[in-house]
Amino acid sequence: MRVFTIERRIRFSHCDPAGIVYFVNFFDMINAIVEDWFDQVIGLPFQEMHLQRRIGFPIVDTDCQFFRPCHLGDMLRLELGISRLGRSSIEFRIAGRVDDEEKLRGRHKVALVSLDTFRSMPIPDDLRAKMAPYVTDASGDRA
Amino acid sequence: MRVFTIERRIRFSHCDPAGIVYFVNFFDMINAIVEDWFDQVIGLPFQEMHLQRRIGFPIVDTDCQFFRPCHLGDMLRLELGISRLGRSSIEFRIAGRVDDEEKLRGRHKVALVSLDTFRSMPIPDDLRAKMAPYVTDASGDRA
Amino acid sequence: MRVFTIERRIRFSHCDPAGIVYFVNFFDMINAIVEDWFDQVIGLPFQEMHLQRRIGFPIVDTDCQFFRPCHLGDMLRLELGISRLGRSSIEFRIAGRVDDEEKLRGRHKVALVSLDTFRSMPIPDDLRAKMAPYVTDASGDRA
Amino acid sequence: MRVFTIERRIRFSHCDPAGIVYFVNFFDMINAIVEDWFDQVIGLPFQEMHLQRRIGFPIVDTDCQFFRPCHLGDMLRLELGISRLGRSSIEFRIAGRVDDEEKLRGRHKVALVSLDTFRSMPIPDDLRAKMAPYVTDASGDRA
Repeated sequence: MRVFTIERRIRFSHCDPAGIVYFVNFFDMINAIVEDWFDQVIGLPFQEMHLQRRIGFPIVDTDCQFFRPCHLGDMLRLELGISRLGRSSIEFRIAGRVDDEEKLRGRHKVALVSLDTFRSMPIPDDLRAKMAPYVTDASGDRA
Repeated sequence: MRVFTIERRIRFSHCDPAGIVYFVNFFDMINAIVEDWFDQVIGLPFQEMHLQRRIGFPIVDTDCQFFRPCHLGDMLRLELGISRLGRSSIEFRIAGRVDDEEKLRGRHKVALVSLDTFRSMPIPDDLRAKMAPYVTDASGDRA
Repeated sequence: MRVFTIERRIRFSHCDPAGIVYFVNFFDMINAIVEDWFDQVIGLPFQEMHLQRRIGFPIVDTDCQFFRPCHLGDMLRLELGISRLGRSSIEFRIAGRVDDEEKLRGRHKVALVSLDTFRSMPIPDDLRAKMAPYVTDASGDRA
Repeated sequence: MRVFTIERRIRFSHCDPAGIVYFVNFFDMINAIVEDWFDQVIGLPFQEMHLQRRIGFPIVDTDCQFFRPCHLGDMLRLELGISRLGRSSIEFRIAGRVDDEEKLRGRHKVALVSLDTFRSMPIPDDLRAKMAPYVTDASGDRA
């Protein structure tokens, strides 16, 4: 089972008057890791996905637990795996760490739709084959 | 049981290349309804909360289900209630509708901390008394 | 000569670790006042402009001077006038005040394009007629 | 004379319903290149600047011309130089290109202030010495 990883330096613009990351920005980072994974692993950049294939993966359900705040200057390491690969849906599990400290854990479910009809579609076999190595076996684990 | 409501016109800047609201912006709206509720209902504007009292309500866990996309120009009506009022935590339930169509449903848990120590604190009784009318009785309902 | 005005409460999410508005958010507010003016004054909501008429007003040049910081909780009053109405372009002048203190002054130039070709187009006469009352006579004034 | 360069892939979240970058996001990128330059060139990361030294460089005036739209998937190369180094202020010039096409040109003026008093301060000599190599000689050029 594989994990896809990106790193993000916590910037000034991510932080709020309390000096910690405004939580909304974590969801933007979660979107970014999914975008990078589609680009680098699945070989389907968003511009090709949306503009040429006219398909999209809108978010069905997303959940994130925040264990500890992140601060300006932290290097956040985000990891992506797949907790459940359905017929047209993918449930990602996302973990965020700074050094050895777990900062957040997310579950982020998307589903394939046609952008012309906004109706769900089955994930094509060629894409599914590239996704399969990222499916985790921790099926009993909530996050 | 009371519900607090705000309305938000879906703007150009909320929308993505697929012509629908980029989901991250919904979390910013959820933060806004919580901020407005603290200001207008609890009588504790965020500037007073953060800068004078040096307390905050960071997000512990947030979850949102998206049923249908929102489009540019939609008037989104957001409703806030409390699904669980703990010793130092508040779990809000948020619903979003455009006309009669439910667009999203969220669960948004925050916990009171000291901004100086980032340690949790019990919710003071005067604040708790103002929160109580918003506690829903739908305790068995997940969202 | 008319001026179009909106008010925006400075929110937690607008502010940075220095406790003042992150300047990027002012540009989002400038976009919002332009959007509201097109909707409420010109009678051309962005969804109709973009999705039905297939025209847009991309930004050609924007400039903003920041005189004093805005803080969490401030009520910012934004005013919009037109400093120059060209064949296909509109140069707005924007002023931002909190109470009697001027916080910012902007110049924001947009130009009408076809969204299909991204080439400039003359502003139609019916729209121009509704814009004219907002042209200021302070033509010698930079901002 | 030196130029500092970063590259940014244009993401889904940067783009608007017209399929091009929402201009506000360019200002966030301009802030990012300034932040990276302070960190990597001047040796003064924003967290040290703000939290330890209690100084900041708020924006005094910023201006950006947009020549051509940027699209999802573009790799934007941003370049930073200094067009004017004052006693307490720095006026950056920023250029943005995708391949050989110039997309934007900005002028971004910041001034050193104490975060405790929000009053301007002279730029310390040790910082000034590191900034000097980035001053361009194109002093007669507007942008």
